[in-house]
Amino acid sequence: MAKLRLFVDRLSQPSRAIIIFCLANGLDAEENLVDLGKGEHRKPEYKAINPMGQVPAVDDDGFYLFESHAILRYLASAYPNVKEHWYPVDVKKRAQIECILDWHHTNLRRGSAGLVMNRVIAPALGHPLDPKAASECEALVKASLDTINTLWLNEDGSFLKGSSEPSIADLSLACEVTQLQFLGEETKAKILSPYPKVRNWLDAVEKATSPHFESAHEKLRTLAAIFEQRRESQSSEQPAAQSDL
Amino acid sequence: MAKLRLFVDRLSQPSRAIIIFCLANGLDAEENLVDLGKGEHRKPEYKAINPMGQVPAVDDDGFYLFESHAILRYLASAYPNVKEHWYPVDVKKRAQIECILDWHHTNLRRGSAGLVMNRVIAPALGHPLDPKAASECEALVKASLDTINTLWLNEDGSFLKGSSEPSIADLSLACEVTQLQFLGEETKAKILSPYPKVRNWLDAVEKATSPHFESAHEKLRTLAAIFEQRRESQSSEQPAAQSDL
Repeated sequence: MAKLRLFVDRLSQPSRAIIIFCLANGLDAEENLVDLGKGEHRKPEYKAINPMGQVPAVDDDGFYLFESHAILRYLASAYPNVKEHWYPVDVKKRAQIECILDWHHTNLRRGSAGLVMNRVIAPALGHPLDPKAASECEALVKASLDTINTLWLNEDGSFLKGSSEPSIADLSLACEVTQLQFLGEETKAKILSPYPKVRNWLDAVEKATSPHFESAHEKLRTLAAIFEQRRESQSSEQPAAQSDL
Repeated sequence: MAKLRLFVDRLSQPSRAIIIFCLANGLDAEENLVDLGKGEHRKPEYKAINPMGQVPAVDDDGFYLFESHAILRYLASAYPNVKEHWYPVDVKKRAQIECILDWHHTNLRRGSAGLVMNRVIAPALGHPLDPKAASECEALVKASLDTINTLWLNEDGSFLKGSSEPSIADLSLACEVTQLQFLGEETKAKILSPYPKVRNWLDAVEKATSPHFESAHEKLRTLAAIFEQRRESQSSEQPAAQSDL
């Protein structure tokens, strides 16, 4: 049995960040699926691991931890094999990574999760779509992408804050942007189109963690394609409806 | 001139956390008011310090940083005088603090800030009150207080995760709970009443950082009392309206 157990679903953006981090750093981790589609995250046996009932969580030889950024910081600090660029030791460099990680919660994360939920996923979870909430979240996503594009990718270097190698902030934010895949290939491309530095940065994160970034996103791409097919068939049956997707 | 400059408004909960942290640790910090009521946080000269246009921010001898949790981590790491309990070095103890700090963004912080804005402050900033949003945020505040009460104060020790001395997480969360003062003394007491451990913990944080916790809250108490007086006079003029405040 692996010492480090991950409780994850690859459809969840912070779960993917943890999985890619472990694979890219050669950590001996066992991946345990907590199937969000089946509501396994709400079951008592999972809440014994994470009382918040969310993924991801980890069990490191009896030490339980949740909140993806706390997990990334912990793994980068506790496992000596992890290269320093993931979580710099220099207090100022680290502080800049922390700033981006904290900013993320109330900006890109809030926008992206809310947009995908209220425009695409909600019915699959038994809730109605909410176009007003989706529009507000879309505005927040665009403002967040603009901040990444103009503020954190404004220096030399392929990664956030001008680094030549990725940090845990690159991984967390990149896995959030890829969640827009749920909106469909065309809509995702349209949202990203005004932000060339963001698009280049996503390619750089994928390349730096190859082939793990791509493989960790396979489940998302497959499900997103099913949602897209459904929208297309509904759209051809009811040509006047859902014109924006 | 002090080496460390704080850009803050004591009406902002994360600003208070930074101010109390500096005072409690004897850091030589210069407090610069960024008056939220006058919109000074939106002015270009402040956005040169924090492009997000929010308080708090710090300038540590030319190193600019925003996001209050990033600032607290930075100050605790960069200033040798800060006692270790504020930000434990042990990777597991630290990870538990990080977990609470990350959880805070999307739970207590989101609920408290939204509740106070949508039930009390919005008109003062030119926006309408939003009773539906306020109710949703109140539910999130109560769920968050329950989590603190049952999950993070369930061990011996006066502070979060059973510690006998406060961490930066104690300070951040406590300064958020005190923001409920804006709802009025009675409503705040009513919201806190089911959570005895939270009430004891607030007392412990105040005591551990005395007299700085109390003095940092004076501006909040003064303004909250003005809001309360206004509500009372409006209520006596229009007895049927605003019955819940």
